[in-house]
Amino acid sequence: MEVGVLYSGGKDSTLAALFLDRFYDVTVLCCSFGVTDDHQHAAAAARAVGFPSRRIDLDRGVAETAVERMVAEGYPRNGIQQVHEHALETCADREFDAIADGTRRDDRVPTVARSLAQSIEDRYGVPCLSPLAGFGHEAIDALVADTLVVETGPSHEVPKGDYEAELRALLAKTHGEQAVEEIFPDHVQSRVTGRM
Amino acid sequence: MEVGVLYSGGKDSTLAALFLDRFYDVTVLCCSFGVTDDHQHAAAAARAVGFPSRRIDLDRGVAETAVERMVAEGYPRNGIQQVHEHALETCADREFDAIADGTRRDDRVPTVARSLAQSIEDRYGVPCLSPLAGFGHEAIDALVADTLVVETGPSHEVPKGDYEAELRALLAKTHGEQAVEEIFPDHVQSRVTGRM
Repeated sequence: MEVGVLYSGGKDSTLAALFLDRFYDVTVLCCSFGVTDDHQHAAAAARAVGFPSRRIDLDRGVAETAVERMVAEGYPRNGIQQVHEHALETCADREFDAIADGTRRDDRVPTVARSLAQSIEDRYGVPCLSPLAGFGHEAIDALVADTLVVETGPSHEVPKGDYEAELRALLAKTHGEQAVEEIFPDHVQSRVTGRM
Repeated sequence: MEVGVLYSGGKDSTLAALFLDRFYDVTVLCCSFGVTDDHQHAAAAARAVGFPSRRIDLDRGVAETAVERMVAEGYPRNGIQQVHEHALETCADREFDAIADGTRRDDRVPTVARSLAQSIEDRYGVPCLSPLAGFGHEAIDALVADTLVVETGPSHEVPKGDYEAELRALLAKTHGEQAVEEIFPDHVQSRVTGRM
């Protein structure tokens, strides 16, 4: 069975892919709105851990709507969730036997509630998996320490390949760097550079 | 890292153990209230798939309280949940680096909500994992079909090694066979007899 895993090159989506690798043929999916080339960072991480990757083009209009929503609300939560759901749906509409992401039990955003997963399964006819949904952050940190070589740092120094980088770029372009600072504060990112 | 997996010998807890096997040294835990010898069915399934097993003695008083609750309520849901939480807590109080169970995204009972998992983690200092929490029943059925040899049938023909068999026996002993029929209707069980 072939599973497509939404992939940022960070530790969570890499660990999710490794969990699935036991049972599925894994292809990691590097999503891009075409705003930046950051998806290449995800593809590089995939090469470093040995997963085949594929670029998935997302709808730039969704990113623009999400950015306007973030500006209107003053925080990024709902915009990020909207983009994640769009990415899941886009990937579900391909030929995989299942799709998956790296959301964890303790994540605040994005999340894949049971209702969302079931809705995607009903509409697209493919299982929607979150292999880390039953793992808290301490367990994941311990697994990552045992398994992966990870580079960590602030967003601007450790660019990941997920759509967050593109949303930040789009926000800067449409509302200025100051808007990024206000709405989307810098936080620690992780990028996988190899296996232990 | 060593993980102890609550184990019934059914397909879900076996699949959960297989997921964890990639990252942990797995020991499967065959829980017993001492009411019947059904825990031996779980130990036999563990041998069939190649996991070391350990018997864990649970508090019979908890089973007795759960059975009285089932009788009073007329359905088994809360009693089963109470017993599962007791089993998790008993296993968490051992020397494992993590504990786990086989609860799935679509299960109605028992469930391990995020709040319960975090409460156990806080009180016992070990991660509490549910590897199948992000998998729906269709995905699990497909994985089981690819991976395990499974015998299925009604509860009385396919005795599993979980505490449900003991709760049924205790209910029959204290309130008669009729009470089992009324409160705990027979349903299809699965028992793993090997790997594909």
